Amino acid sequence: MSGKADSGKLYHLQCTGIAKATADAHSTPKDITLFGSCFCPFVQRVWAALEHLGIDYKYYEVDPYKKPADLLEVSPKGLVPGLRLENYSPPRAVNESTVILEFLEDVAATTTKRSLLPPVTEPYARALIRLQADHVNRTLVPTFYRYIQAQDEEKQIQAGKDFVEAINGLVKLFQRADKESGSNVGLWREGGTLSLADVMAGPWLFRSTNVLVHYRGFAVPEGPQFRAYLGRLLNYPAFKRTCSAEELYIDSYERYAHNRPNTSQVANAINSGTTLP
Amino acid sequence: MSGKADSGKLYHLQCTGIAKATADAHSTPKDITLFGSCFCPFVQRVWAALEHLGIDYKYYEVDPYKKPADLLEVSPKGLVPGLRLENYSPPRAVNESTVILEFLEDVAATTTKRSLLPPVTEPYARALIRLQADHVNRTLVPTFYRYIQAQDEEKQIQAGKDFVEAINGLVKLFQRADKESGSNVGLWREGGTLSLADVMAGPWLFRSTNVLVHYRGFAVPEGPQFRAYLGRLLNYPAFKRTCSAEELYIDSYERYAHNRPNTSQVANAINSGTTLP
Repeated sequence: MSGKADSGKLYHLQCTGIAKATADAHSTPKDITLFGSCFCPFVQRVWAALEHLGIDYKYYEVDPYKKPADLLEVSPKGLVPGLRLENYSPPRAVNESTVILEFLEDVAATTTKRSLLPPVTEPYARALIRLQADHVNRTLVPTFYRYIQAQDEEKQIQAGKDFVEAINGLVKLFQRADKESGSNVGLWREGGTLSLADVMAGPWLFRSTNVLVHYRGFAVPEGPQFRAYLGRLLNYPAFKRTCSAEELYIDSYERYAHNRPNTSQVANAINSGTTLP
Repeated sequence: MSGKADSGKLYHLQCTGIAKATADAHSTPKDITLFGSCFCPFVQRVWAALEHLGIDYKYYEVDPYKKPADLLEVSPKGLVPGLRLENYSPPRAVNESTVILEFLEDVAATTTKRSLLPPVTEPYARALIRLQADHVNRTLVPTFYRYIQAQDEEKQIQAGKDFVEAINGLVKLFQRADKESGSNVGLWREGGTLSLADVMAGPWLFRSTNVLVHYRGFAVPEGPQFRAYLGRLLNYPAFKRTCSAEELYIDSYERYAHNRPNTSQVANAINSGTTLP
């Protein structure tokens, strides 16, 4: 059983804290509109990438569970994040967080010249970061949901171990890149810059420090290298600017922690053992 | 029940037909060694990409179920495909088919100048192809395995419908790209060139025309646009050069069709409802 009773808290509908200030500073029309939800980690990936890459955007908060018509035009499944590209008539759209990240990387290549990857002239250094990103999507993220949704104690203990194992797998890939790549992209190395893998893992690592600690008594791994990395990530300006106050996440994830029916398409996929949407 | 009794056929250990000629023509040392298995669709993705991009390679057949030591050095999970990069000392490695494809795309960008994507100056056209590729990985591929592994008739019927639905989803994304992109990359358009999504979907679409027809009586969708696309794909020289004779696939997939225990890591993941390895 989950250690805390379900108090019936609902997900939030508006950013708080630093993220609120960032959203307010991006409330006027731009070529790109980010359809986002304040609690959603898939959105946070894209939002932090926009901040890091220095691409202009408008932040537009939507309630994905209400499936408003303008969201369905951007994402047929009604999922955030979505980008609406206003410089086309009619507007066009890109959805799926990993596709959006690659799209923004391409946009930045010919505009702001900032990047989440080493230059294309260093294919192996790029591949090392893509291996990390692949591990995040296929292991770290589903393991997080299995952990927070697990209800009986035995399953929670196993899922907690699996989540730590997923973090350890990521750390191994970070260490390999540190050894084999001369690139300064990636926060694992002190003085490094935000990478595609950092921005893809960040939202769940962040939620492990608040949501998982609160609902599952999660012990964040103590390795000094990992703790230093986590500190750099959570304090990295482009990432930090997308973080609401912790209460928002605690409240918004109570429904996952009690595995309430129809919590989300992601939660349903975990419960039925199919691919995440 | 499956319509055909399990005759105990084993997977093949050597390419046949056109693929055999291609493997023989790539048997001498090069900077890149492709660790492959003749029946494996994840390998075929990478192999066809190497052929299309015009990158030099040596094809090296391995039995992934025997987990030879040189494979484990390239892929810690002992999975094909893997690339060993011989121009480093000691050699380095890249694994995971989607990561390898991006790596090869980056290598080609500064060497052969061939590509599976529109140029980086067309971010939206690239995103349209990445949306297709994302659908292939997250829907088409797992649905294929659920279909071929389903044992009772009711589940086979449902999985067959799901597989057709996954193809229809891909067709919708092809049609959208055809409408919204001026790019000639992608075989959906007559006269187009092989795209990242084509090469990622191709191995399973090919196997749907032989393995699924043989073991599940699968009716390949008849839409004339889809049939024309399938014809262009299966006859595209870079793809065709990686195809063995059909008997090899029929034999090699019998163990999937009867869901024999420990058929593969992919089969186990489908059976347990976790993410594909």
